[in-house]
Amino acid sequence: MKIGFAGLGSMGSAMAGNLIRAGHEVTVWNRSPDKCAPLVAAGAKQAKTPADAANGELVMTMVANDAALEEVVFGTGGILAATGKAAHISMSTISVELSERLTQTHGEAGRGYASAPVFGRPPAAEAGKLFIAAAGPADVLALCEPVFAAMGQRVFTLAEKPSAANVVKLGGNFMIMAAIEAMAEAMTLCQKYGVEKASFLEVLTGTIFNAPVYQVYGDILVNERFRPAGFTAPLGLKDMTLVASAASSARVPMPILGIVRDHLLETLAQEGDDIDWSAIAGAVSRNAGL
Amino acid sequence: MKIGFAGLGSMGSAMAGNLIRAGHEVTVWNRSPDKCAPLVAAGAKQAKTPADAANGELVMTMVANDAALEEVVFGTGGILAATGKAAHISMSTISVELSERLTQTHGEAGRGYASAPVFGRPPAAEAGKLFIAAAGPADVLALCEPVFAAMGQRVFTLAEKPSAANVVKLGGNFMIMAAIEAMAEAMTLCQKYGVEKASFLEVLTGTIFNAPVYQVYGDILVNERFRPAGFTAPLGLKDMTLVASAASSARVPMPILGIVRDHLLETLAQEGDDIDWSAIAGAVSRNAGL
Amino acid sequence: MKIGFAGLGSMGSAMAGNLIRAGHEVTVWNRSPDKCAPLVAAGAKQAKTPADAANGELVMTMVANDAALEEVVFGTGGILAATGKAAHISMSTISVELSERLTQTHGEAGRGYASAPVFGRPPAAEAGKLFIAAAGPADVLALCEPVFAAMGQRVFTLAEKPSAANVVKLGGNFMIMAAIEAMAEAMTLCQKYGVEKASFLEVLTGTIFNAPVYQVYGDILVNERFRPAGFTAPLGLKDMTLVASAASSARVPMPILGIVRDHLLETLAQEGDDIDWSAIAGAVSRNAGL
Amino acid sequence: MKIGFAGLGSMGSAMAGNLIRAGHEVTVWNRSPDKCAPLVAAGAKQAKTPADAANGELVMTMVANDAALEEVVFGTGGILAATGKAAHISMSTISVELSERLTQTHGEAGRGYASAPVFGRPPAAEAGKLFIAAAGPADVLALCEPVFAAMGQRVFTLAEKPSAANVVKLGGNFMIMAAIEAMAEAMTLCQKYGVEKASFLEVLTGTIFNAPVYQVYGDILVNERFRPAGFTAPLGLKDMTLVASAASSARVPMPILGIVRDHLLETLAQEGDDIDWSAIAGAVSRNAGL
Repeated sequence: MKIGFAGLGSMGSAMAGNLIRAGHEVTVWNRSPDKCAPLVAAGAKQAKTPADAANGELVMTMVANDAALEEVVFGTGGILAATGKAAHISMSTISVELSERLTQTHGEAGRGYASAPVFGRPPAAEAGKLFIAAAGPADVLALCEPVFAAMGQRVFTLAEKPSAANVVKLGGNFMIMAAIEAMAEAMTLCQKYGVEKASFLEVLTGTIFNAPVYQVYGDILVNERFRPAGFTAPLGLKDMTLVASAASSARVPMPILGIVRDHLLETLAQEGDDIDWSAIAGAVSRNAGL
Repeated sequence: MKIGFAGLGSMGSAMAGNLIRAGHEVTVWNRSPDKCAPLVAAGAKQAKTPADAANGELVMTMVANDAALEEVVFGTGGILAATGKAAHISMSTISVELSERLTQTHGEAGRGYASAPVFGRPPAAEAGKLFIAAAGPADVLALCEPVFAAMGQRVFTLAEKPSAANVVKLGGNFMIMAAIEAMAEAMTLCQKYGVEKASFLEVLTGTIFNAPVYQVYGDILVNERFRPAGFTAPLGLKDMTLVASAASSARVPMPILGIVRDHLLETLAQEGDDIDWSAIAGAVSRNAGL
Repeated sequence: MKIGFAGLGSMGSAMAGNLIRAGHEVTVWNRSPDKCAPLVAAGAKQAKTPADAANGELVMTMVANDAALEEVVFGTGGILAATGKAAHISMSTISVELSERLTQTHGEAGRGYASAPVFGRPPAAEAGKLFIAAAGPADVLALCEPVFAAMGQRVFTLAEKPSAANVVKLGGNFMIMAAIEAMAEAMTLCQKYGVEKASFLEVLTGTIFNAPVYQVYGDILVNERFRPAGFTAPLGLKDMTLVASAASSARVPMPILGIVRDHLLETLAQEGDDIDWSAIAGAVSRNAGL
Repeated sequence: MKIGFAGLGSMGSAMAGNLIRAGHEVTVWNRSPDKCAPLVAAGAKQAKTPADAANGELVMTMVANDAALEEVVFGTGGILAATGKAAHISMSTISVELSERLTQTHGEAGRGYASAPVFGRPPAAEAGKLFIAAAGPADVLALCEPVFAAMGQRVFTLAEKPSAANVVKLGGNFMIMAAIEAMAEAMTLCQKYGVEKASFLEVLTGTIFNAPVYQVYGDILVNERFRPAGFTAPLGLKDMTLVASAASSARVPMPILGIVRDHLLETLAQEGDDIDWSAIAGAVSRNAGL
């Protein structure tokens, strides 16, 4: 299939690489063009603008945030300016609001649009083992099937309305923060009563909490391994702000959200920006005098 | 081994039954003596008082709450009044404070004491598949080994100080409430954006949240199956009050605890007492206007 | 003094009227031009654009929100397009971010800028009894002195940086929400124990809480007089969102803010948009089953 | 009138002194008897037990907490053991639960009982300027009228049920904590944007927040004058725990309560016990990195 791919960070590069390996005809674009080289070496074409990458059947975007995606779509040489009508598949974690705006804009322009944000970190992206939360019109999603298969281990098809997938992605990140916060509070309590954090974690993951979210983050909490960051606190705050904005528009009180946002702010105020989002556990611990 | 067992609710009866089946010489006691019949039929002796059940090597207690255990230990004909020196193994969910008081009292009386609260519901108790969180002096725990093996699938040995096990049990129940609350908040958000609760749950349990706590309670939330209660909201509130008391004594701020307590109160105020503790999800949903 | 005044809602009309009565030469502008008539009848000139109102010594703006002010300043015929160099005095409740942007933009354009949001409702505006929180360069504020004197009973001069005044205004509105929330929680508790809400309020305002914030809102809470709205819940939510945004940028955890925002969302979800912001007290009461 | 007075801390001594000066025949009792000397010098009789002080028309108690009052009433030589039938007026800050227990016990014993906790610190007690929140049967309160007049500047009569007064007292202390917390959050925000805390306080107390609760505690916050403590954080925590217990029994969610309790725990964990309860403002500030 002829596919454009805009946004070649560590996630995007790995995802585009898998598309090439799967035999697709991939045209890549990145704001800093030098990131294109390895993919071009692997067989991709390089586009000068996002618009140039949007003349095939699909154009996928994997960029840092709302502002970057707005530039890629609405900016000079953006997808909207393409002569072709490639359907736009947005795979970044973006706001519900922007997703709804894209739905409307692309609809008016006769261009297909689906949202398909992913769960997983760069190693999972490289291994083609991402989880993909997809929402959009059935025909657009049908077109994506082989493409998603090249990138992920499982696709969750959620709704016809693209923004549904963005909400699910944001909800998932919120769930991670909530699990970390809860674990941090309980671990701190245990520690004060002489129970090693590792012992408490063993009980959790040895019983009904035996899931990666507790195993992976629990291990980070036990070892207080908050640097180098896997996913930084400022990115966590950005996502939690997107959750808050979606919750506010839809009028959904989310009290745990207030707590994790406050602990992210506390962490950033006391520790700086280069720390993992799971370092909210450090705030919980310090607040107990540990 | 000669074992006394006091407290024959659905949990205790199942646990004592497994001890009999494992070949131990079991003497049972219950406040309402009629609960003893099935176990006597299975080979147990029946004691007239907890003290009468405390003349072997171990006396285990599995009662409803602090008040019940205080009666069993300190009341007339209580364990403290026994002529024998059976070590006391408390398996109920009780306060840290009472556990510390028992440690001191039994210590002064030259009686061994360990705490070994369990994770699991009656079917797990019957199947001998409980998880046991144990803390106490090494010699007492060594004595318990074959006994725990008859009742549980796994024992977590936590510390020499018995109350450590009580904190871990309370911490575990807090973790369950936190997971339910977080899921309820995220599900409500998704629902407002047109995503079925079941679809969101599928994403969770299909990715890094694939643990029973999400599977079991997620299913209850999706189907709003809050009655009949598996574990009632008043019992949940009792446990969260014990967590709060332990946190207050040890000076550990636990902001998520405040939220789940408030949602339990809201649930009780609006729905009455016969509802499952997971019904805090109903409060979350109603507060969003659903 | 030659003064432009843009934004003739009930607040702005009253404020501009006082400027006319104080003998200033006032030019008014409003998006719906018909609002200008009464002021023109009182002696004002009518401008066709904000720019036309910005050729005197001062141009004051009193509009609904950030978007309205952006239009008035940056839009076609906006203040930035004025040939004159009237200093801009923004008196609306706007975001810290926009205030900082205006500081920079006006600075680059060689135009003075100060922020001077007000505390008080339309009757206070008509009576010239507003409280004015002012921040900006000393020379600009000096120019405002007689103008502020015509509109307010007291001016608080806060800092050289204009956005300081916007933070203070937002902080003040947050304090009102917090006082209402606290009163609602305590009143609900008292009510459950058989104490009339009015009796509790009498104790408060008869002791160390004898301030208008408790007298005025306490009376609304006692009588559940949430409609018609004096200040609507959506406006309250808008302001609390501005507080959250300022707190997030400056990395200030504000846990009470999370609570009042959630109660505003709950109120809006259950009661609709035409209700007073103090109706968060209704949510508190309902959550307790009253 | 013949009045017994048990509990001669700085509050009780001042209150009993005023009763003597007003011409009442006062018999005093205190756990450490040496505290009686100054009052005996002023004309009081000294009782050997609380029971000995309970043979007149009224016996008033002003002690530290529930445990102390239980000892004074139910202990050996306690009020219940008195031969006379003096009505018991409890003026301490105690739990709703104990107040309800006293209502029942005294009722069964044919003894009058009323609750009349006070607002005010020792200097106000000495000046006879306390505020008294009274609840109880009309005949008992009628008896108290001249007595209250000697101790306070104003009596709020709340309900026939004595515990109503205890709830109001607890609600009032909660309101103080909430006002301090809100002020601390807003002040911290302002400070981060370059506004002096004193300037923000001036705006508050110069507008609709002009009440002693903001003036007095605002001044403490501006000057971070948390030591020596006027009312210690452990006492604040004790009272907030009583509020939580009352709220839990009556099923009233009080989210601000969770926050102030957590900030008291944080303060105690980080600062020790000898600090004022208003030092929760220090926690708010530190959490923002100041």
